[in-house]
Amino acid sequence: MSLADELAKKQRSISVAEFFEKNKHLLGFDSPVRGIITTVKEAVDNSLDACEEAMVLPDIFIGIKKVSGEVYRIIVEDNGPGIVPDQIPYVFGKLLYGSRFHQIKQSRGQQGIGISAAVLYAQLTTGIPTTVISRTGAATPAWRFEIQIDIESNEPEILRREEAEWDRTHGTRVQIEFRSTLAAKKRLLDYLKYTSIVNPHARIRVEMDDEAFLFERVSDEVIACPEPIQPHPHGIEIGNLKRMIVYSEDSLEDFLVNGFARVGTKTAREMCRLAGLACEMPARNLTPAQQKSLLDAMQQVKVPAPPTTQCLSPIGEALIVQGLEKEIQMDFVSARTRPSSVYSGNPFMVEAAIGYGGKLPPEGNAQILRFANRVPLVYQQGACAITGCIAGINWKTYGISQSGLPIGPLLILVHIASTNVPFTSESKDAVASIPEIEKEVTLALQELGRELKTYLSRRDKSRLQEDRARAVCAIIPEIAAKVAEIVELPPPDISPIEGKIMRKLVTRRETRDGKVAIEVRNYTDQKGAVTLYDISPDTAEDATIRPDFSSRMEQEVTKVWQVPIEPGSVWRVEYTGAGGGSLDIRGIDQKYIVTVDLDV
Amino acid sequence: MSLADELAKKQRSISVAEFFEKNKHLLGFDSPVRGIITTVKEAVDNSLDACEEAMVLPDIFIGIKKVSGEVYRIIVEDNGPGIVPDQIPYVFGKLLYGSRFHQIKQSRGQQGIGISAAVLYAQLTTGIPTTVISRTGAATPAWRFEIQIDIESNEPEILRREEAEWDRTHGTRVQIEFRSTLAAKKRLLDYLKYTSIVNPHARIRVEMDDEAFLFERVSDEVIACPEPIQPHPHGIEIGNLKRMIVYSEDSLEDFLVNGFARVGTKTAREMCRLAGLACEMPARNLTPAQQKSLLDAMQQVKVPAPPTTQCLSPIGEALIVQGLEKEIQMDFVSARTRPSSVYSGNPFMVEAAIGYGGKLPPEGNAQILRFANRVPLVYQQGACAITGCIAGINWKTYGISQSGLPIGPLLILVHIASTNVPFTSESKDAVASIPEIEKEVTLALQELGRELKTYLSRRDKSRLQEDRARAVCAIIPEIAAKVAEIVELPPPDISPIEGKIMRKLVTRRETRDGKVAIEVRNYTDQKGAVTLYDISPDTAEDATIRPDFSSRMEQEVTKVWQVPIEPGSVWRVEYTGAGGGSLDIRGIDQKYIVTVDLDV
Repeated sequence: MSLADELAKKQRSISVAEFFEKNKHLLGFDSPVRGIITTVKEAVDNSLDACEEAMVLPDIFIGIKKVSGEVYRIIVEDNGPGIVPDQIPYVFGKLLYGSRFHQIKQSRGQQGIGISAAVLYAQLTTGIPTTVISRTGAATPAWRFEIQIDIESNEPEILRREEAEWDRTHGTRVQIEFRSTLAAKKRLLDYLKYTSIVNPHARIRVEMDDEAFLFERVSDEVIACPEPIQPHPHGIEIGNLKRMIVYSEDSLEDFLVNGFARVGTKTAREMCRLAGLACEMPARNLTPAQQKSLLDAMQQVKVPAPPTTQCLSPIGEALIVQGLEKEIQMDFVSARTRPSSVYSGNPFMVEAAIGYGGKLPPEGNAQILRFANRVPLVYQQGACAITGCIAGINWKTYGISQSGLPIGPLLILVHIASTNVPFTSESKDAVASIPEIEKEVTLALQELGRELKTYLSRRDKSRLQEDRARAVCAIIPEIAAKVAEIVELPPPDISPIEGKIMRKLVTRRETRDGKVAIEVRNYTDQKGAVTLYDISPDTAEDATIRPDFSSRMEQEVTKVWQVPIEPGSVWRVEYTGAGGGSLDIRGIDQKYIVTVDLDV
Repeated sequence: MSLADELAKKQRSISVAEFFEKNKHLLGFDSPVRGIITTVKEAVDNSLDACEEAMVLPDIFIGIKKVSGEVYRIIVEDNGPGIVPDQIPYVFGKLLYGSRFHQIKQSRGQQGIGISAAVLYAQLTTGIPTTVISRTGAATPAWRFEIQIDIESNEPEILRREEAEWDRTHGTRVQIEFRSTLAAKKRLLDYLKYTSIVNPHARIRVEMDDEAFLFERVSDEVIACPEPIQPHPHGIEIGNLKRMIVYSEDSLEDFLVNGFARVGTKTAREMCRLAGLACEMPARNLTPAQQKSLLDAMQQVKVPAPPTTQCLSPIGEALIVQGLEKEIQMDFVSARTRPSSVYSGNPFMVEAAIGYGGKLPPEGNAQILRFANRVPLVYQQGACAITGCIAGINWKTYGISQSGLPIGPLLILVHIASTNVPFTSESKDAVASIPEIEKEVTLALQELGRELKTYLSRRDKSRLQEDRARAVCAIIPEIAAKVAEIVELPPPDISPIEGKIMRKLVTRRETRDGKVAIEVRNYTDQKGAVTLYDISPDTAEDATIRPDFSSRMEQEVTKVWQVPIEPGSVWRVEYTGAGGGSLDIRGIDQKYIVTVDLDV
């Protein structure tokens, strides 16, 4: 027997379940720490997709509990449309099975792998089958299944199937137990926080060991579910075309019109003409050579870009800004939704936001939030094309330091929405380098960068102006007093000078000989009232104008006055004290305010 | 009909071919540029693996030719054992089919996906079937196949099957045509160069358009093919154990001894005892609860690490250094093969090398060469755990600048050999972050870093010494002359002083008043002869000692003298000229040499 014969005996078909069992890190199950996040992510993706299809406001419950030793029980429950009993074993017990793979529309799940990978991981690490309860409506009973995957055939194994009591009228509940740890709890909560930012219509409740968390919905508007579209004639390759042709019973013209997006009768006829083919011939009669001519002709005819409004569901600039502001206080934030575009026939859209200052950490790399089809990406930031684009931009142009990534109190959010997000692996952690997508991400960030630059230079300018104004207001009275002393005259009224130099609301606190005097001079044309906050250890009990509000907090006393202003008005209060602490004016645009504190 | 019923109608099984057709970037077919490299890589991996199994010195031919427009024909032909005709359609026409997936041993191919992905890509982009010729021995005919993949079933479609004439007595030839470009030609040649470095026993001939390249073998020793091992009892999970048990006809004791690496009778009995199970019970009779007790017991008993010498095939320190030196001239190079280790029951081994100086570019990031199971990794450097480890090391400790990656004339090679290399995706571009592997890579590089540091500080020290010596030799004659002038005596002989200060071979060139004098003084205990190279515009026709060799090259004349030396010897030549240019001594250890050029 030849060596080839011997080798042949070792040749074997590998089931996709075997493949992913051996390569479980490809599915995001590379460590016990990650297992929980990956499972929650896949289950929540499914729940949100299902609720979107059913036009239901999602109400999702997540329970994570240690049951023994290293074994955790993960429960994810939703109020979606439910799954018919016959489908349940396949949805959870077969890798590469699903409803969204063949549709050209934006959805969170695309591959038909996610949740069954968690089932596989459970049976691999604990041998415990997965329990699923699902109900499709109040009129039907709920069904309870215990499921495993037959690894060598990648077919579901049903260990138990029975009707069950369940208090929800529709929805699905999956319970999975595997070896894991809760070491990445913070990351899990971050993932849920960001999920809730981009899915403001979802309520997500979490019970984790003994703690409970609620991510409440902030919008009662159901997101419109994207609708599938036909493939675009410029994004199709010969292999796909051949298969579409085999199944077609149409004439060539109808095949083109019905099978492709943006192809009308006129375009179809032009394609037939260029290919030298009769419009009325049955499409399935095309010879391989004719198929190739047709494909070439299809590329040559101009066709508008694929329709995107129906198949994509961007978050929107307003909602991104709102979501970010809810979570993080920043001085500047702006978002951009780019026009839709296409790569290899797949429509996609890039959204981005930049935040600056406020409570963002002033040092270290910018914080990067990556999203794909409304799902936060939590792992493999370094491998992601989004990160690559961010590092590839010259941030110094926009006044931001940079060492690889930009540095400083900066937050960068990028969302890629597509009918087919090109991930670098099945675990959907990072977006692959696709030139068309990278271009859009870069453009979005550059636009925002320019806005940020404008903000920063205006801020620097107004800071400069304010510094100057403060200096002037501090020094002019001193000069006036000195001059008065020399010429032996009473100090002159300097307010017209101040008013001339700048049109500001000047608040001046002078502490001298155990006396505090606060003066508010309005050189602006604003009128109404402002609120003065004076926070210092002084109680100001003998104040010439009684504070409207006063409260002590440890060593500090907060004194608040409503100060009426009108053009040219001067308001003044005096009390016995040592001054210090802080002085604040509210109720007028910050750009008018100049505060001077003189401790003489 | 409920929504769930409607959704159910869209549910479908997805064939693995459909999955990878849609996600072809996961297989390394994300762009036409990459297609050729990925295909060559997969085919060459298969050829090298097959030759290794057959104990044949690989003789591989690669042909890449543009056939029309954007279509390229890629041919890879080897002298391996060949494939029996019945297997050919499956090996090339079915994803997830192969002989190496289920074996625990190091091999280049592991997944049974690679080459069939190229077949898929061809049929997708050009619709042209793949042609395979294979022959298993001189006594059998060669067979020729035309193959495609039926995408919806992931089964091979045989378009033609016939006996063929072929001049090789054994081997396989695959011819694939797809849309591509040769834009990444340099990267392809780099890939082949590095392949040849780590496979010194292979001859690889390439014809690319009109150019031919040969990577000749430098070793006639066949690499021993790694032998498969049994799984290690500490690396097994409950799912795998269950499946092994189902197929077993042994008693529990024999099941453990025969089924696992490093388990002898004594260890097996200890496992049974701890699990509270009888050694002689048939393994297949174990209840699920008993299976779990057995697994726990298996983890508790101490078992030596898995055997690695048979299943792994490291390159070896000597061969790595030799391979690198063949390709790149460097001042320092050192390699390290770490002891074998284990992650999740998979044996692995890390090898690394560091090169410094020489012809390496003095600026920019260090050059990184990554290998896995003797295959160079050419894409996704940033996503690779190897790169992460390199960036994670504090190179400043070793005298190397760093900004993320180390900077300077530095080359870093890392090879990971394992029975199951954990790649981040099916395209096998980058190694996933596995703590055990990262630890070994870091340790290997730190060891080499310390060596590099020693080299650098020795080099700096000898540089310093040389600088000092040169300064002394330059200044002492000046001082002597000055002193002689002052005291009005002839200049003293300073050689004893120089000899006392340092034991060097001092070459001094003095240019004064249109006369050049070169003196070689030997203060060392070396004897024999050295070669003096004097390169300047001077022709030295009137030299007091005639050069042994003289040649003009444009404006420069190279003059070479053999200079006899013995301890204390002085050799001197004079000629008319303007000096300048360079002066070099060869034939004696560099550490003895001091060269002084005085232009008075």
